Amino acid sequence: MKLQVAIDRVPLADAVALAKQLDGKVAIIEMGTSLVKDDGLAGFRAMRAAIHTSQLLIDLKTIDEGGYEFKQGFAAGADILTVMGAASLATLQTTAAATETAKKEMMIDLMEVDAAKQQAVSIFPDAIYALHHSTDRQDHLDPTATVADFHNAFPQLKRLAIAGGIDLAGATALAAQGLTEIAIVGSAITKAADPVSTAQQFMEAISA
Amino acid sequence: MKLQVAIDRVPLADAVALAKQLDGKVAIIEMGTSLVKDDGLAGFRAMRAAIHTSQLLIDLKTIDEGGYEFKQGFAAGADILTVMGAASLATLQTTAAATETAKKEMMIDLMEVDAAKQQAVSIFPDAIYALHHSTDRQDHLDPTATVADFHNAFPQLKRLAIAGGIDLAGATALAAQGLTEIAIVGSAITKAADPVSTAQQFMEAISA
Repeated sequence: MKLQVAIDRVPLADAVALAKQLDGKVAIIEMGTSLVKDDGLAGFRAMRAAIHTSQLLIDLKTIDEGGYEFKQGFAAGADILTVMGAASLATLQTTAAATETAKKEMMIDLMEVDAAKQQAVSIFPDAIYALHHSTDRQDHLDPTATVADFHNAFPQLKRLAIAGGIDLAGATALAAQGLTEIAIVGSAITKAADPVSTAQQFMEAISA
Repeated sequence: MKLQVAIDRVPLADAVALAKQLDGKVAIIEMGTSLVKDDGLAGFRAMRAAIHTSQLLIDLKTIDEGGYEFKQGFAAGADILTVMGAASLATLQTTAAATETAKKEMMIDLMEVDAAKQQAVSIFPDAIYALHHSTDRQDHLDPTATVADFHNAFPQLKRLAIAGGIDLAGATALAAQGLTEIAIVGSAITKAADPVSTAQQFMEAISA
């Protein structure tokens, strides 16, 4: 299982500094949506320049104008871009095509997507499907149960990710379960007193 | 009925130049999502500096982290910010509270929101509800029929907007219908040979 660390709601300089420290220590470094909307393409380029070994995911959360946003994101050097499952099927088809053209990767964010829409968007076998709990919701998800439910509903989808309040225990349980390709961790790492050693704890826990 | 002109998918300098030309000639000037993600807060500030008379709407399309995004958007000088109806109810409640605190306005973008979710998010009487057809969809909506259907379903919601392929005939029909507060027009104005005189044609048509 890969570890993705999401960097969000900090000044760009701090995000770049943390990305440099995490580079090569975790599989994927995420430039969060707050940085996208605060810093735009200049931010994309600064994050790209900071990262040499890990993959860079830019959390665009595209919900329309898929061709334009994915072209901009891949041109700026993203390895993985996100599109909302709540977008129109036409938008998802557009971002899937742009991803294939760029020979890069697409993550579909399933936040607030109900069962019927999940079914409609389950037609992209190469995409990463991210089970995602809104940050603004105060309730919590059970990571392994959420992954198991989705896997049982869509066994043909092989690339699963999960985000939303994942802590060390949750990441450890996900790794043991063996169904998740990417565990996405935000504040449990980035707000820790020592984010790098905390990330290393997560890496040890999920590879144990 | 007010006219909102959406500026999207152009370099920031071109957007600023067009905003200066349209300032005071149309009710609302929209900084589109592509400019948000390309230019970030620096773009917000450039658009704010360009506009003195019209209202500035920043099309944030917030779908999570509502408190953070709305705080940033209003601090940068937006008069109106957008949140997706597809967001969690918790996100919408957060953006509504941030809007009230800032004494500004919130537009809820109903793109790809089904009837059940429309019902769930119909609890914000001060918000502007934007009926919106994804740019990536190739089919077209009938503006007056779309507004009439929504008005019949939610007669208590008094502030309606509509976006998606609105041309001069569509805007004229919407004004005559009398149910729409804001008609949002993009490329029919911004891609015209003379955007300012085209905007003036729209203004004359909707005030006739």
